[in-house]
Amino acid sequence: MRPWDGIISEDEQKAYRAAGFGRAQGMGARPALLIIDIQYRTIGTQPRPFWDSVKEFPTSCGEIGWAAMGKVVPLLDCFRRKGFPVLYPHVAPKVAGEGGRLAEKVPAIMTIPAKGYEFPPEIAPHPGDALIPKKHPSAFFGTAMVSHLIDLNVDTLVMTGCTTSGCVRASAVDAFAYNFKVVVPEDAVYDRSRVSHCVNLFDMAEKYADVMPAAEVLKKIEALPPRVPARAAE
Amino acid sequence: MRPWDGIISEDEQKAYRAAGFGRAQGMGARPALLIIDIQYRTIGTQPRPFWDSVKEFPTSCGEIGWAAMGKVVPLLDCFRRKGFPVLYPHVAPKVAGEGGRLAEKVPAIMTIPAKGYEFPPEIAPHPGDALIPKKHPSAFFGTAMVSHLIDLNVDTLVMTGCTTSGCVRASAVDAFAYNFKVVVPEDAVYDRSRVSHCVNLFDMAEKYADVMPAAEVLKKIEALPPRVPARAAE
Amino acid sequence: MRPWDGIISEDEQKAYRAAGFGRAQGMGARPALLIIDIQYRTIGTQPRPFWDSVKEFPTSCGEIGWAAMGKVVPLLDCFRRKGFPVLYPHVAPKVAGEGGRLAEKVPAIMTIPAKGYEFPPEIAPHPGDALIPKKHPSAFFGTAMVSHLIDLNVDTLVMTGCTTSGCVRASAVDAFAYNFKVVVPEDAVYDRSRVSHCVNLFDMAEKYADVMPAAEVLKKIEALPPRVPARAAE
Amino acid sequence: MRPWDGIISEDEQKAYRAAGFGRAQGMGARPALLIIDIQYRTIGTQPRPFWDSVKEFPTSCGEIGWAAMGKVVPLLDCFRRKGFPVLYPHVAPKVAGEGGRLAEKVPAIMTIPAKGYEFPPEIAPHPGDALIPKKHPSAFFGTAMVSHLIDLNVDTLVMTGCTTSGCVRASAVDAFAYNFKVVVPEDAVYDRSRVSHCVNLFDMAEKYADVMPAAEVLKKIEALPPRVPARAAE
Repeated sequence: MRPWDGIISEDEQKAYRAAGFGRAQGMGARPALLIIDIQYRTIGTQPRPFWDSVKEFPTSCGEIGWAAMGKVVPLLDCFRRKGFPVLYPHVAPKVAGEGGRLAEKVPAIMTIPAKGYEFPPEIAPHPGDALIPKKHPSAFFGTAMVSHLIDLNVDTLVMTGCTTSGCVRASAVDAFAYNFKVVVPEDAVYDRSRVSHCVNLFDMAEKYADVMPAAEVLKKIEALPPRVPARAAE
Repeated sequence: MRPWDGIISEDEQKAYRAAGFGRAQGMGARPALLIIDIQYRTIGTQPRPFWDSVKEFPTSCGEIGWAAMGKVVPLLDCFRRKGFPVLYPHVAPKVAGEGGRLAEKVPAIMTIPAKGYEFPPEIAPHPGDALIPKKHPSAFFGTAMVSHLIDLNVDTLVMTGCTTSGCVRASAVDAFAYNFKVVVPEDAVYDRSRVSHCVNLFDMAEKYADVMPAAEVLKKIEALPPRVPARAAE
Repeated sequence: MRPWDGIISEDEQKAYRAAGFGRAQGMGARPALLIIDIQYRTIGTQPRPFWDSVKEFPTSCGEIGWAAMGKVVPLLDCFRRKGFPVLYPHVAPKVAGEGGRLAEKVPAIMTIPAKGYEFPPEIAPHPGDALIPKKHPSAFFGTAMVSHLIDLNVDTLVMTGCTTSGCVRASAVDAFAYNFKVVVPEDAVYDRSRVSHCVNLFDMAEKYADVMPAAEVLKKIEALPPRVPARAAE
Repeated sequence: MRPWDGIISEDEQKAYRAAGFGRAQGMGARPALLIIDIQYRTIGTQPRPFWDSVKEFPTSCGEIGWAAMGKVVPLLDCFRRKGFPVLYPHVAPKVAGEGGRLAEKVPAIMTIPAKGYEFPPEIAPHPGDALIPKKHPSAFFGTAMVSHLIDLNVDTLVMTGCTTSGCVRASAVDAFAYNFKVVVPEDAVYDRSRVSHCVNLFDMAEKYADVMPAAEVLKKIEALPPRVPARAAE
């Protein structure tokens, strides 16, 4: 049973299979973990139902965000133990005059209070983690992300955070185009619409990424030998 | 009545509204038309039902592609009369050794016959139109697209073609990040899954683009004064 | 008499002419001013001879930087009066772990004190100016620069600052590739090597930019009608 | 004795050293060879003195190009024996309407005959080599280059071809920003100006690349263990 069953009909799933979509890429040997936009502004300062949580931050997804963060924690712990890199693409506070198309399309996003930009301690960065401030949906657009990943000699990106239909999806499409293997743990990403969440998981599974439960990703990462820093050889 | 009504529940649509999503960007004054991947390989050499059409090209969307192309034709005619630029991001034939992640995820895509890469005469390029061969979903990734658009002094991109959930969506996200205004005529784009098509229209309407029927886009383009080539002034 | 005369021989200048290089692009109608890396770390907190100034910041170019800044000031004033955009691509303080190739090639760059990253008041940003922190030589690499320029509807970039052979040159090459017209006021850019400064001006003049004295650039900008914000039309 | 000695004064070389520039990056373990723009249009169909050769193709550098190609041949042979990737960023024939800034700056470049775009047999691509058509100076700008290099798991780029001050320099700056190690064999790159060639080697040596004779690069590549294809492991 996949998250999109019952939303995408069997017939339409067959149509994608006929076009040859949906094969697995498999996991590489040098993964990095991306924690995308898990900040108080997307989950609230406490787990609350959606309609309560948006009163604190209009951009919050509420308690489903907290549930997904709960699935990120063991992944993060495993990446740290193995010495695999962890990167934090995140939204930096907006500055007047830099709104562009975003300010027209989603004006509320320009006025989030500073607390909203903080990381919850459960998944907060450690010294040495790469912080990637971004202004656009994709973690790659207008950022040093690719340069970091080349420096770190990464071949696989495990993408967690939010929203499934927004920054996670946009980052997965770019990562795929850059020829990274992309893995999306389906219960460690979240969105304010369940249907859009599920259909975006379907789209990514068919075209850009391997999509599976976080527990399964965890098992695959645990099975990998720990990281030997690439630059030590010289 | 929007294409995604009945698929995305009213409650979830309200959730997006609460976050402040979904405002209109409006049309600029200097639009360009993007005809994305309308090639025989995505519609077949004749309008046929989906399951017949995939026998010709596994990547075909069949008769819904022909229907969408029918909506592109008057738009294309209008852009040509007004002197607005038309660009053709399209998939070039694959060459051995350049598969990368795509070859793993969608192996059938590596072996489409040459006829599949041709443009149907209804929407075929004229001399002077920009042909943008691409190897990745987005029309912007690894292409000279942005350079063309800057040279042409474009502020708005009308995106047609296929697939809604693939190259159209990926191109819309990038165009939005580059700060172009993005307009998606909902019946001039197509996909092999109706549900994914509708949900991707919803995602784009909420976050990246103005989504409306082709007839409405046509009216807005007709209302614009014709193009004065930007470089003539010098 | 051009800055590179006597360094590049007449015969070699003829060789470039034979290949058809070196034509003028001309000035567009919608310029923006780029002030690249004019921070205390590249000129020192006071105008001092080179070998004194490097004692304060090893990356300082000393008094020639102050001389060039003196040429930027009237340009900046003119851009502000006309309402043309001013952008500040600049180096943000380095963070541990993000060195990559730069840390290997120029280790001293990782340990500049905070004061070095400040802008001198003569050319300091106003509210609303775009601040573009960058980690790489080009103002475009891994930044939101292009998105800003598209949003601002710019067609011409006047590039000032430092170093001629480093970030100015790298930014000019990218701007040219994006199809912006590039203008380099030869006495408003600076470098720690006079010869490299002059040869880089030659390279840019032949291939990527119009190179002329700041006074001449100023006259051309003064002759332009002031900016009408692009988005007001809607 | 370095190529730029006598052109860049000792004092100016010291000034760069004071700023901390010019350290070696060292060679990685997974190199790729870039053969940039070695096509008849840049060397002529036969080795001829510069002023004769430009009669055949105005963009030719003449016999110095043939000399540099002679240094590329043993490098290429070594890369092939070791199984290291070879990539060919090259200029594709121009199409009407795509000139942009280039057509203004170097109009002659728009009308080179087809023969000029061919590769000399000495360095011609083998099946499986990546051909990277480009429209801009850098091999990375608007191309799939980075995606190829990530797919091939490359950490070091050896750059040969032309021109030193044009496409080689622009590619080196981008490769450096992407965090690849860059090696430029000083006698396997060429330019129509000797002084600009030498100063660009200096600039790259100080800031972006390790610059050394081709013979030395060859020795370092020979010392590396041959390539084990990255994807075989799965």
